[in-house]
Amino acid sequence: MSELRWDPLKRHWVIIAADRGRRPSDFFTAETPTPMTSCPFCYGNEDKSPQEIFAIRSSGPPNAPNWKVRVIPNKYPVLRVEGEVKSRAYGPYDVMNGIGAHEIIIETPEHAKGMADLTVDEISDVLRAYRSRILDLRKDLRLRYLVLFKNHGIRAGATLSHSHSQIIAVPLVPPVTVTELGVCRDFFELKDRCLFCDILDFELQTGDRIVKDFPEFVLFAPYASCLPFELRLMPKKHCHDFALLSDSELEGLARAMKDMLLRLKEVLKDPPYNFILHSAPSLKPRPGRPDFWTSIEYDYHWHIELVPRITPIAGFEWGSGFHINPTPPEEAAAFLREAAV
Amino acid sequence: MSELRWDPLKRHWVIIAADRGRRPSDFFTAETPTPMTSCPFCYGNEDKSPQEIFAIRSSGPPNAPNWKVRVIPNKYPVLRVEGEVKSRAYGPYDVMNGIGAHEIIIETPEHAKGMADLTVDEISDVLRAYRSRILDLRKDLRLRYLVLFKNHGIRAGATLSHSHSQIIAVPLVPPVTVTELGVCRDFFELKDRCLFCDILDFELQTGDRIVKDFPEFVLFAPYASCLPFELRLMPKKHCHDFALLSDSELEGLARAMKDMLLRLKEVLKDPPYNFILHSAPSLKPRPGRPDFWTSIEYDYHWHIELVPRITPIAGFEWGSGFHINPTPPEEAAAFLREAAV
Repeated sequence: MSELRWDPLKRHWVIIAADRGRRPSDFFTAETPTPMTSCPFCYGNEDKSPQEIFAIRSSGPPNAPNWKVRVIPNKYPVLRVEGEVKSRAYGPYDVMNGIGAHEIIIETPEHAKGMADLTVDEISDVLRAYRSRILDLRKDLRLRYLVLFKNHGIRAGATLSHSHSQIIAVPLVPPVTVTELGVCRDFFELKDRCLFCDILDFELQTGDRIVKDFPEFVLFAPYASCLPFELRLMPKKHCHDFALLSDSELEGLARAMKDMLLRLKEVLKDPPYNFILHSAPSLKPRPGRPDFWTSIEYDYHWHIELVPRITPIAGFEWGSGFHINPTPPEEAAAFLREAAV
Repeated sequence: MSELRWDPLKRHWVIIAADRGRRPSDFFTAETPTPMTSCPFCYGNEDKSPQEIFAIRSSGPPNAPNWKVRVIPNKYPVLRVEGEVKSRAYGPYDVMNGIGAHEIIIETPEHAKGMADLTVDEISDVLRAYRSRILDLRKDLRLRYLVLFKNHGIRAGATLSHSHSQIIAVPLVPPVTVTELGVCRDFFELKDRCLFCDILDFELQTGDRIVKDFPEFVLFAPYASCLPFELRLMPKKHCHDFALLSDSELEGLARAMKDMLLRLKEVLKDPPYNFILHSAPSLKPRPGRPDFWTSIEYDYHWHIELVPRITPIAGFEWGSGFHINPTPPEEAAAFLREAAV
């Protein structure tokens, strides 16, 4: 079973995924994509993966072909649903049971297609699957936050090349989210406004970092981008929670995402990338713990963050926490704005 | 000129190194090491690099062969010494001049040797160069912290294969350091003890994660290691500042470092890695700013952190701030302990 271990010096939890138990020789395997015949995410290979949790399909029974989007538990989950969230002290450290969930959203039955190659309707289906899984996983009050993300390409951490996203449900709100939520709450308390809305207003006003202004969304390069060609896709309408989006809003988002991914593919030649959904945590209070984010509907603004992984995170970044970005976001935005899509 | 830009949402500064101005095509260059004839760090090519700042040499004039260790300014510095530290607001953000320094410590004249291949005397010379540069750079009160690190291998961010380390002097104490210093100060206030000393005691007592117990140093795998085979090398004698080490202590450290690097090379087949020196910041107070770390000599404990870069930092880690480590540190320590060195 996995453990969450607390580092008192760095003040953060680390997931020690002992089930994955990687020995030295496991790190020397060749970096080649999975050959098509054995891909567990392809049509006809449904028996090579765990039973599906959710699917969008035109007809036919579960765990057989004819699906458009298929959600399965990860065969090698980082965190498992079985058990109770318990923590205890261990010398100067703390340790917690690795309770959570780990799901894979297979975005298409077609092995060779990336997310950028899917139609707007197909991406809409993927987004509907995200929404559905988020709403379902939130029923489990042990899961304090759902990290929804995509790894595309080996250098971005993808171990299977067939296009998929993942949800890891964690028993604690993650550090990145805690900071963002805290900042937004403090800002709202002070100014009665959403900080994200302020940033969006400022970015639209200067225009320097805007890649594309869609009817319902804005795609821009963040002012303090950590990595070259980093992007943020944000809804114009203030809303704290991705899962509240209507079908027609999801279609608008699918359109914007396809545009974003095509621009990236064009300008950076199909780079490895990660995207991460930043959305509000479940608002249901935990027994014995008061709800900390009382104004979250007003102060937080969901969005998607995308980072191409074209430069390594080197010793300076790892050791200091400062990032060095050699491509000013204004230049990145200009290249992406001019891409022929 | 570089800029430091403040992200109000993530509460961190990012260095936008516009001088490095990398365009999309710059990211598609082949990942091959520099051929030996053109390496600016080799004997006889001293004119291909900036004038040296410091060197350890047996005889002869500066900027000519016969050196053992050579320190030069980075030709493409992330931060520059010229100018004044100034910050201003920009819409919802902040921006600061990119003042600092960026130096390269060339560890050996021999192109093909890694740090693990150097003799203990040669590594001692490298450590003496570190100490000398730290003491000199601290005279500049604008430089609030010195990040000393090494990138070995392309996946760890090394752009030249000739063995070298770097110092980037920054006008702000970095986030990772701020957290560590704050934790140690708070712990000392509460318990009148150094938290690192407590951790060292506990690790030596259990022994599970100890790789090697040297006379003056301990090499161990941290309990909450973020990455597989992560290591910490810590002096047994409480001391906040690496730069206070005597020549004989540096020799002991060189011996421990060579052992650490050889074990890593043996078990993980010369993996890419980063190491980072964690030492106290300069204690000289800045005009107009009181000194925040008054008990630092008692509460902080310098050490070296090493991370092999054999797994990518994927979307989950980037987006959440949680790390997933598939190799329990107890197992990593066992493999490294048993290495034939």
